[in-house]
Amino acid sequence: MTAVDRLSELNLQLPPPPQPAGAYTRAVKSGGLIFVSGQLPIADGKLQYAGTLGEDLDVEAGYAAAQLCALNALSVLNAEAESLDHITIVRLGGYVASASNFFDQAKVINGASDLMAEVLGGRGIHARLAVGAPSLPLGAAVELEVIAAL
Amino acid sequence: MTAVDRLSELNLQLPPPPQPAGAYTRAVKSGGLIFVSGQLPIADGKLQYAGTLGEDLDVEAGYAAAQLCALNALSVLNAEAESLDHITIVRLGGYVASASNFFDQAKVINGASDLMAEVLGGRGIHARLAVGAPSLPLGAAVELEVIAAL
Amino acid sequence: MTAVDRLSELNLQLPPPPQPAGAYTRAVKSGGLIFVSGQLPIADGKLQYAGTLGEDLDVEAGYAAAQLCALNALSVLNAEAESLDHITIVRLGGYVASASNFFDQAKVINGASDLMAEVLGGRGIHARLAVGAPSLPLGAAVELEVIAAL
Repeated sequence: MTAVDRLSELNLQLPPPPQPAGAYTRAVKSGGLIFVSGQLPIADGKLQYAGTLGEDLDVEAGYAAAQLCALNALSVLNAEAESLDHITIVRLGGYVASASNFFDQAKVINGASDLMAEVLGGRGIHARLAVGAPSLPLGAAVELEVIAAL
Repeated sequence: MTAVDRLSELNLQLPPPPQPAGAYTRAVKSGGLIFVSGQLPIADGKLQYAGTLGEDLDVEAGYAAAQLCALNALSVLNAEAESLDHITIVRLGGYVASASNFFDQAKVINGASDLMAEVLGGRGIHARLAVGAPSLPLGAAVELEVIAAL
Repeated sequence: MTAVDRLSELNLQLPPPPQPAGAYTRAVKSGGLIFVSGQLPIADGKLQYAGTLGEDLDVEAGYAAAQLCALNALSVLNAEAESLDHITIVRLGGYVASASNFFDQAKVINGASDLMAEVLGGRGIHARLAVGAPSLPLGAAVELEVIAAL
């Protein structure tokens, strides 16, 4: 079963790769690695999850936001590598807009980690960083950075 | 003298590698690099340093927290590479739970940097990022991400 | 035209590489990549842009701070690689000291991205992360981390 088949089973499909929000590109390949630019929880060109965890969003919404960031990152990887079927996820960096007393960044970023494992199987199992941020670009709840390997 | 000997001289010993706090793995090797997941100041399965620098923790406590994160990262590297004696530390990313008027993130993360140099000598000298965060997983005072090379 | 020529056209010149602010080194080469330590908006040994975006600094000042961080990173790369003319910028990580309602981190970090493209042309086009932080070392407004390739 291909990665796109697995996405279908989850009732998901790859969106077009999002446009960078500044003077940079969506991904760069170097030394066998693919560095994907930070992805926001955007669909159809609009931010879907704005706000701060521990204030106006709960873990469930944060999990969904992280999943959407991961779907966008998969879309970029699919465009860069021509297929997701030879991609390995090396490292996820998850940034969660957080109140100073919100400590469930790991549960939020599991939305991205779980999707990677569901879609890519063992090739989706990665090293990970999850941290809080006071605010993120456009007011996003989550931002996700991905390093993959071909 | 081996890295483990140097740890002994510092009255430190490698703990078992901590379990990931989410749906990911402790480290991934790719292209000669080892990406270690974010390490918290945990010992015996319990968070040892909770709180915010500049509010309820001082630089000395933060330094000790960063040192403990680094010890956990060394434990992961030792398990992944079968020995610390052929490992080079490439990059540390240090995230410090910080009040908005706390600016000594560098002094805090020196707890990790100093340990790497003490244990690994010249192979422990690394590039580094140190930044503040409003909050970190589990309420940790410090989180440390490591990239090493074989 | 060399990278140094392009800097001249912008009325910029490479400063001496800044000294690390802790127990680490300015850059490490591994596997064809150069990991540059986090750069602050320092000139002549003094922090030029202190403060928080959305509180005491506006986007224009943040853009200038990010540009200065990028100039310092170019100085480190020039020293490490002996010339900027064979360097490719792979990934920028931009950390912006941000009030919780400041969402223009992308516009701030464009100060670094634009400079990389102006000085290095196509070799300066990179993948990027831009996030907020409650505070940064020394009270800096911006910190920039760079991964380049030889």
